[in-house]
Amino acid sequence: MKNIVWHESQVTKENRSSLKKQKPFVIWLTGLSGSGKSTLANALDAFFLTSEFHSYLLDGDNVRHGLNRDLGFDHDSRVENIRRVGEVAKLMTDAGLIVISAFISPYRLERDMVRGMFPEGEFIEVYLDASLETCESRDPKGLYKKAREGKIAQFTGIDSPYEEPLAPEIIIRSDSQPVQNEVETVIEYLYSKKLLDR
Amino acid sequence: MKNIVWHESQVTKENRSSLKKQKPFVIWLTGLSGSGKSTLANALDAFFLTSEFHSYLLDGDNVRHGLNRDLGFDHDSRVENIRRVGEVAKLMTDAGLIVISAFISPYRLERDMVRGMFPEGEFIEVYLDASLETCESRDPKGLYKKAREGKIAQFTGIDSPYEEPLAPEIIIRSDSQPVQNEVETVIEYLYSKKLLDR
Repeated sequence: MKNIVWHESQVTKENRSSLKKQKPFVIWLTGLSGSGKSTLANALDAFFLTSEFHSYLLDGDNVRHGLNRDLGFDHDSRVENIRRVGEVAKLMTDAGLIVISAFISPYRLERDMVRGMFPEGEFIEVYLDASLETCESRDPKGLYKKAREGKIAQFTGIDSPYEEPLAPEIIIRSDSQPVQNEVETVIEYLYSKKLLDR
Repeated sequence: MKNIVWHESQVTKENRSSLKKQKPFVIWLTGLSGSGKSTLANALDAFFLTSEFHSYLLDGDNVRHGLNRDLGFDHDSRVENIRRVGEVAKLMTDAGLIVISAFISPYRLERDMVRGMFPEGEFIEVYLDASLETCESRDPKGLYKKAREGKIAQFTGIDSPYEEPLAPEIIIRSDSQPVQNEVETVIEYLYSKKLLDR
């Protein structure tokens, strides 16, 4: 074979982002079960694909059954769950990707720990602010019902706390608007911070 | 804002790969410390970038200080280290990336565990076959010297076993050829399996 050439130096985060014609960052969705994280996450992921940005969605479906299958739902395991998600998000932004994370991530300390892994401006905390009543009435997976019946212990909002973000980049009232509006709110923010090029 | 549109359905692995104009797969380098894994890994990574393929290199530098910082070097920790690397590689191929992994990964069982995470043909085991004598004489990080002095315990090849792959996709005699030849061997394999388009 001929004409195999390459740079001598190590490939950098900038090289990888440049190939993708984008800046990497993390959109960290946090909020109660039923607050609409998955719905918004999937809509954002689809928006990025349609706009030819390279994104990836980390959520319970692809993390809890694989990387974090060894972890339970007690306090320490939940913190370790979020730490690993943060570390994977960091590797993926290093790969040049836009990462969307959709986990309840109920503790301020763990969210701030993850924020601290990233350069300034690369971690965008999005709080999906919906009342417990709304979330419980939606109950898309029937989890609140099980928690109320005592079949699930340490369920956030019922017998485990959710600590609202004090200074998230974006707050979305998610019990009163269509998901398209929520997507627009996030995308406008990304444009305004020049994280996305129009 | 107007004209925000997206697909209704969830974004798939095929969508993400298609945007990158490539097939995702894992090149899993295994071999003794000093067998040339990092050199080949970086050269492959640079080849992919130059050829506008989207790749990412997982190695001790970016994994051991982050995701796996809680793990030591005893047997169970080493297996867990490799399990997590496999799971991250799986997430990254799901994101449409080509992943290069450069870890000693001394045990057959752990390599086969990782192989089992991937669809047939997506996991390419590359054995860097160099004699212990060659690796020890190179000793790029001075680790063999420390192991011989008893300053590092359970060092692969000294007082911890390395189990040669029985049926790797590629074997590279890495003590007798320039890295460019090694890259060509791997790339030719990828072409032959139609994992890369010419």
